[in-house]
Amino acid sequence: MGGDHAPDEIVRGALLYREKGGPAEVLLVGQQDRLRPLLGGARTGVEVHHAAEVIAMDEHPANALRRRSDSSIGVATALVKKGEADAVVSAGSTGATMAAALLVLGRVRGIDRPALCGMLPVLGDRPATCLLDAGATMDADAKNLVQYARMATWFMEKVHGTKRPSIGLINVGEEPEKGDKIRLEAHALLTASDMNFYGNIEGRDVLRGLTDIALCDGFTGNVLAKGLEGALDVVQVGIRGDIFGGPLGKVAAAFAYPGIQKFRHRFDYDQYVSAPLLGIAGVSVVTHGRARANMVRWAIAVAERAVSSRLVEAIGASAATAA
Amino acid sequence: MGGDHAPDEIVRGALLYREKGGPAEVLLVGQQDRLRPLLGGARTGVEVHHAAEVIAMDEHPANALRRRSDSSIGVATALVKKGEADAVVSAGSTGATMAAALLVLGRVRGIDRPALCGMLPVLGDRPATCLLDAGATMDADAKNLVQYARMATWFMEKVHGTKRPSIGLINVGEEPEKGDKIRLEAHALLTASDMNFYGNIEGRDVLRGLTDIALCDGFTGNVLAKGLEGALDVVQVGIRGDIFGGPLGKVAAAFAYPGIQKFRHRFDYDQYVSAPLLGIAGVSVVTHGRARANMVRWAIAVAERAVSSRLVEAIGASAATAA
Repeated sequence: MGGDHAPDEIVRGALLYREKGGPAEVLLVGQQDRLRPLLGGARTGVEVHHAAEVIAMDEHPANALRRRSDSSIGVATALVKKGEADAVVSAGSTGATMAAALLVLGRVRGIDRPALCGMLPVLGDRPATCLLDAGATMDADAKNLVQYARMATWFMEKVHGTKRPSIGLINVGEEPEKGDKIRLEAHALLTASDMNFYGNIEGRDVLRGLTDIALCDGFTGNVLAKGLEGALDVVQVGIRGDIFGGPLGKVAAAFAYPGIQKFRHRFDYDQYVSAPLLGIAGVSVVTHGRARANMVRWAIAVAERAVSSRLVEAIGASAATAA
Repeated sequence: MGGDHAPDEIVRGALLYREKGGPAEVLLVGQQDRLRPLLGGARTGVEVHHAAEVIAMDEHPANALRRRSDSSIGVATALVKKGEADAVVSAGSTGATMAAALLVLGRVRGIDRPALCGMLPVLGDRPATCLLDAGATMDADAKNLVQYARMATWFMEKVHGTKRPSIGLINVGEEPEKGDKIRLEAHALLTASDMNFYGNIEGRDVLRGLTDIALCDGFTGNVLAKGLEGALDVVQVGIRGDIFGGPLGKVAAAFAYPGIQKFRHRFDYDQYVSAPLLGIAGVSVVTHGRARANMVRWAIAVAERAVSSRLVEAIGASAATAA
């Protein structure tokens, strides 16, 4: 029920996931009288689980969850807790999804704070870079950053098949002595760890795909991720208006059509924007509020891979050893 | 002597500034045997002031400055201190320029920490947005942020002629209760101030030009500014390679030529990237290490406007009242 285009595009995304051969069965949690008509006849592997209420974007997440026991995100997360579902996926309020994950599923033992793990499309050979924390936790410390690095390492290995993923610490310069107190401490801890620590990277290195993992606190990560998204949006407006806007531009667009498709495909966010919430004792995936069917499809796929690769179990075992 | 294309492009920038009618006289501070030949005959209003040494990008700025009294940035900054120059402009190491500014010129009374004030090209009616701190100070607190806001207000009024510039606090959400401890405290202080505080803005709002001033700590500002720059670079590579790369793309490029020029002009950084160091008792302007002549020209113009508008004096008077 969450997101700008819910429930229509969410339902279409679930159906698309199944049409493309996705192995997971999908439970649509929400108002059944609105969901069922959207399913039509083609409902194999897609079922409806009724939940009467919806938490709006402007509500205080934890308060709303406590006050209303029958919200779609609360019910969906509870299904995971009860073992009736393996993962929860939401395009609704990130705060509400996180609050539900924390309240209902709880944290992995040994992990102090959760992190949102966003994927970014990048240039170069890497398919994508994992940016975390993209905004789950405010006021993180160096120890939190090291825990994020460990969780992201497992995430890239398990879900994306990356062997010994490299970790870049987002900082204001490459040299180890650069940065604020948190970064200086985190740099030392990561250097001493057994992880594949590349060293410091800068804001400009993230989209260049210098490392598999771009590590930062949730405040910086949220501002940077939204900043990059905004930059790509602004540029697209510029390309459409300035370059292909006028009469000559329209002719140019006809000739450039295959190239434009190639460019669009490169910066196609749909596969990437689904952010698993790491550090939670269960699989919870947040996708973009603007998500349409194709993005929802990929979010379900990410959740399925996290479950089938036993990501949460790996993080739990590793955190227990490290703690 | 500083920057990737020094001294050739720096000298060309100084000459260009004068050719375009810039009123300030320019002193080129550096190795005279390298600088004089570049001036040729056309040297009206552009003179050379000899300094034997150069601080390299990889040196520790403060140590290098103390060790070598005859570095170009040290000598140039000392000229400002002695009143033989009104402002210093550098494309060299930001750290060295800042260290020289702090050691030689010192801070404005009532300002605890300096801030780099970067300009960003934006969509919409505003010509540009001022982002600060872009990386001068690590571990800033809420009180520092409020001082930055006051300095940026004067900067936009004096140098850019913006009446009562609006201030957006970069945060993870629009609501006043969003953010980390620093942001929560800064939001309250700014709301209670007499400045034109818009409220919280998000990373994606910066390039959209939602406010005249985008306010943040130096760590976040540096990561965001470099991230946005990287995003625009990555997109340009994509446009050149994907859209206009193949044989059809080349035909398209011919038709799209006027539009491409328009697009380039919109995201032309040259006018914007010069960052004055606010909070210093003198005018010190840092421009990009990649600066070529046109960018150097604009950096000199920004310095001249800061001097002629008496920006430092305004900040000093305001800080004395607020303190």
